[in-house]
Amino acid sequence: MAPRPGSHGDLSGERDRHTVRVGPWTRRSRRVAYENAWIDVWPDAAERPDGRAGVYGLVHFHTRAVGVVAVGDEGRLLLVGQHRYALDEYSWEIPEGGVEPAESLEDGARRELREETGHTAGRWRQLARITLSNSVTDERGALFLAEGLVAGAAEPDPTELLEIRWATLDEVLGEIAGGEIHDVMTVAAVGVYAAERLRGSGR
Amino acid sequence: MAPRPGSHGDLSGERDRHTVRVGPWTRRSRRVAYENAWIDVWPDAAERPDGRAGVYGLVHFHTRAVGVVAVGDEGRLLLVGQHRYALDEYSWEIPEGGVEPAESLEDGARRELREETGHTAGRWRQLARITLSNSVTDERGALFLAEGLVAGAAEPDPTELLEIRWATLDEVLGEIAGGEIHDVMTVAAVGVYAAERLRGSGR
Repeated sequence: MAPRPGSHGDLSGERDRHTVRVGPWTRRSRRVAYENAWIDVWPDAAERPDGRAGVYGLVHFHTRAVGVVAVGDEGRLLLVGQHRYALDEYSWEIPEGGVEPAESLEDGARRELREETGHTAGRWRQLARITLSNSVTDERGALFLAEGLVAGAAEPDPTELLEIRWATLDEVLGEIAGGEIHDVMTVAAVGVYAAERLRGSGR
Repeated sequence: MAPRPGSHGDLSGERDRHTVRVGPWTRRSRRVAYENAWIDVWPDAAERPDGRAGVYGLVHFHTRAVGVVAVGDEGRLLLVGQHRYALDEYSWEIPEGGVEPAESLEDGARRELREETGHTAGRWRQLARITLSNSVTDERGALFLAEGLVAGAAEPDPTELLEIRWATLDEVLGEIAGGEIHDVMTVAAVGVYAAERLRGSGR
């Protein structure tokens, strides 16, 4: 878990000297400036679309992100509340988490829903795939819809101190409009789910 | 623009030794492990909610993120296409960008819409505030609705090679469902806008 800042600083120069075409960009080299269990930071030497040389400081994520719109009785949605260290702010969100490369996105979504809330679901469907902060990071993931919930015992991670509540779709949309709910995966998943429901195109 | 990896490595130990309460977490110290023009990486020494010591590797963003649902004739939405270096993938998105601390989010949204597409808008309204990747980053921002568009000349950043297209709301929702549109700010903004429209609660 401990990061090793600068641990690659002793490598003789660049780690990767291959020139790589990245659309209209050209990457000349890549090295690791910082890494921990969750991210690497790669200050790529790259030529911009206009041909000028520069540095593209890319944050590479080791895990993918999943979020679950979990629909219970009377269409109410399951929300998880926690104090987000990075924001120093309490945040109500859909069940979410990180998925290692060896696990599928849907399996990761099932696991996060079970661990954080104790629930399993009979029906799963992907609502959207997502890329997050894609000017700086390569973080990818997906948003799912889970229906036919069955309650069980939660197994939260010891780094998490979670609360659970149920809210109607209208309540969640109201809290998004009011700014109380702001986690972008929650805003995206609930927005798309609501649009589907209201268009009558939900399967 | 050039990052200075390890430039703070010579500071004698920790930069900030004050103990800070962060909800159920306790931050013992903070230092800068990496920085460039857009981000700092702070591997905070922190005690978790269960009392165990660890490192929280936080990516601090210097700018806030804004995105604009720009609605033109017959309700069509303005999309911007570009090859995203971080993803090595082409991405169609709503007009988006980063906002410096001295600029308001709404002014930043107006500027990004004008720079990327040449358009100004007569009516502006915030759709949602957002936090992105909030288990790792402190990136914040907001999503706006812009109506009453007037065309003008675009002034794209030289690092950007942009295309513009118009799409109906149904087309955009279809491309989100199909995974062709995946930028999470676009998914969130269009989802919330569509839900508002379909609920008939749009002002």
